Amino acid sequence: MARIAIIGLGLIGGSIGLALKRAGLPDLEIVGHDAEYGVNGKARKLGAIDHEAKHPAQAVEGCALVIVATPILHIRHAFEAIAPALGEGAAVTDTASTKKDVMRWAKELLPGDISFVGGHPIAGKETAGITAADADLFRDRPWAIVPSLTATEHAITTVETFVALTGAIPTTIDAEEHDSYLAAVSHLPLLVSTALFSLTSGSQAWPELAAVAGPGFRDTTRLASSSPTMSHDISLTNRENLVHWLDRYLEELRGLRDIIATSETQEELSERFATVQAARDAFMIAPPAKPEPDQNIDDMSAGQRMMSLMVGEYVVRRAKDVQDTLEKRASGELDEYEKQR
Amino acid sequence: MARIAIIGLGLIGGSIGLALKRAGLPDLEIVGHDAEYGVNGKARKLGAIDHEAKHPAQAVEGCALVIVATPILHIRHAFEAIAPALGEGAAVTDTASTKKDVMRWAKELLPGDISFVGGHPIAGKETAGITAADADLFRDRPWAIVPSLTATEHAITTVETFVALTGAIPTTIDAEEHDSYLAAVSHLPLLVSTALFSLTSGSQAWPELAAVAGPGFRDTTRLASSSPTMSHDISLTNRENLVHWLDRYLEELRGLRDIIATSETQEELSERFATVQAARDAFMIAPPAKPEPDQNIDDMSAGQRMMSLMVGEYVVRRAKDVQDTLEKRASGELDEYEKQR
Repeated sequence: MARIAIIGLGLIGGSIGLALKRAGLPDLEIVGHDAEYGVNGKARKLGAIDHEAKHPAQAVEGCALVIVATPILHIRHAFEAIAPALGEGAAVTDTASTKKDVMRWAKELLPGDISFVGGHPIAGKETAGITAADADLFRDRPWAIVPSLTATEHAITTVETFVALTGAIPTTIDAEEHDSYLAAVSHLPLLVSTALFSLTSGSQAWPELAAVAGPGFRDTTRLASSSPTMSHDISLTNRENLVHWLDRYLEELRGLRDIIATSETQEELSERFATVQAARDAFMIAPPAKPEPDQNIDDMSAGQRMMSLMVGEYVVRRAKDVQDTLEKRASGELDEYEKQR
Repeated sequence: MARIAIIGLGLIGGSIGLALKRAGLPDLEIVGHDAEYGVNGKARKLGAIDHEAKHPAQAVEGCALVIVATPILHIRHAFEAIAPALGEGAAVTDTASTKKDVMRWAKELLPGDISFVGGHPIAGKETAGITAADADLFRDRPWAIVPSLTATEHAITTVETFVALTGAIPTTIDAEEHDSYLAAVSHLPLLVSTALFSLTSGSQAWPELAAVAGPGFRDTTRLASSSPTMSHDISLTNRENLVHWLDRYLEELRGLRDIIATSETQEELSERFATVQAARDAFMIAPPAKPEPDQNIDDMSAGQRMMSLMVGEYVVRRAKDVQDTLEKRASGELDEYEKQR
């Protein structure tokens, strides 16, 4: 029996649980804990976890892999809470949208024999909470992997394999690079979208504006519905990069504003719109190649590998047996009696 | 036989044709013209028009209703081209995203006995052209109606009924109000989205950024894929309102930037995100009531009303007969012989 703990059972933690359960690993127990009243029970009823833990420390006992999926600014506290209870050599990962601070907290607060491998699933939706959890949330999405300097190869592979089991594509990246890139294509859009909805909905004419707001307005302001905790925590833990990109964006938009306000021939404006449209169409038609998984996938399936990493060969062989049985069931080779067994 | 002309067979003109054809009015002919080579034929093959016209003037001959669905800055030229050929008392409408300039051109260029009733379907998608046309594009969307001062009641009702036939909800508005509201919730988002994609795709790190860009980035930059001609024409014909809202937006975003850059307690930031999220969730959960159609719908269907307005009672009675036959067919009351008749 192998155990995984998920600390924090919101949209991300809950979706991880559902995705792992659907992967159908035999002999895998998922223990979950959420600080909010009633969430543990909901997560168990939805099938995202097997067992509820009353305290983070209780959840991680005997776990080979611990996933911290709390809001960013709670991660520090979660590390403090689980540190004394972590088993020797356990792998710990997280799911925060910013990585630099998390890596520092892990270094400060987790025991020396613990391998921390930061993680960030680049997926989500604007609805939050366990009730929005979705086993498909991570499918084919990149999942950034940020190993700490002291993480063992074994722990890195465990986390990468866990990520592959959720359907995501693990891709290794440096914490500084991660935060700088995400500031541009995730955190800046969040602020751009929030400011747009803030401005329009704060206008005296809002009832009239809302009546003529179309799908373009809805899409452009979708990120304004993001969790305020997440937005706040991102702004704090990625402040420097975000301010850098905000300044560049303000400059870009002011430039566009000036062309519109002053240009007479409008050729520059035509060219600008045409260039941007062509670039975005190219991006949508042929997005950059999906990141290559960091690991060569060998003959073992991700599920087998995961179990092998966590509990060794015995369970791997059993997993293979169970998988064979499932395949036979699906192809109708087993009779009714065996199907019910 | 009643005739409608559509000048300009792009996404909007083509979708109007498809929506009208699906409404299944008997004895209605749609004549279409597009300046771009090959588009007329495509529109006819797709079933958006019945007849191709080589010139706008040829298209509008004998038409009770003329719909000008060209790019905004071509409308002026279209008005000049059709003016000599318009039948007495014809109703002319358009579909431009801005209305003030169009109303002025109509007054200047269309004959005095022509009723101009401006229109703007608040619908669309980022793909342009006849091949993207969609009979459902306008369903349940508001469609702004901007009657000129000299438009007859009959012409206004004809245009409103035509709009209702496409599935949209006609809603009367003043040209100045229209352009000011749309600047905030349509044209500003277009610029905000364009600047975001322009900035990020122009960055040296773009390949790295694109690799970690998620669905939030795609949604926030969707409008950057809008037709450059449309974006350009909107910027020119709604310049004053757009610059006003761009300035307010720049101020709003700069304020958010300053809170992030300097605030220590971050309470203000938390509050801001929470307020905006609550407001947007409210907007999405209970959007403002759909605009009421300007006309009380009487016992006649929109199709009957349209035909009545355009060619009088005789065709209305025939339309009713045909509709009865169609309903009987659908309910299986007619035998095979009659079905084939």
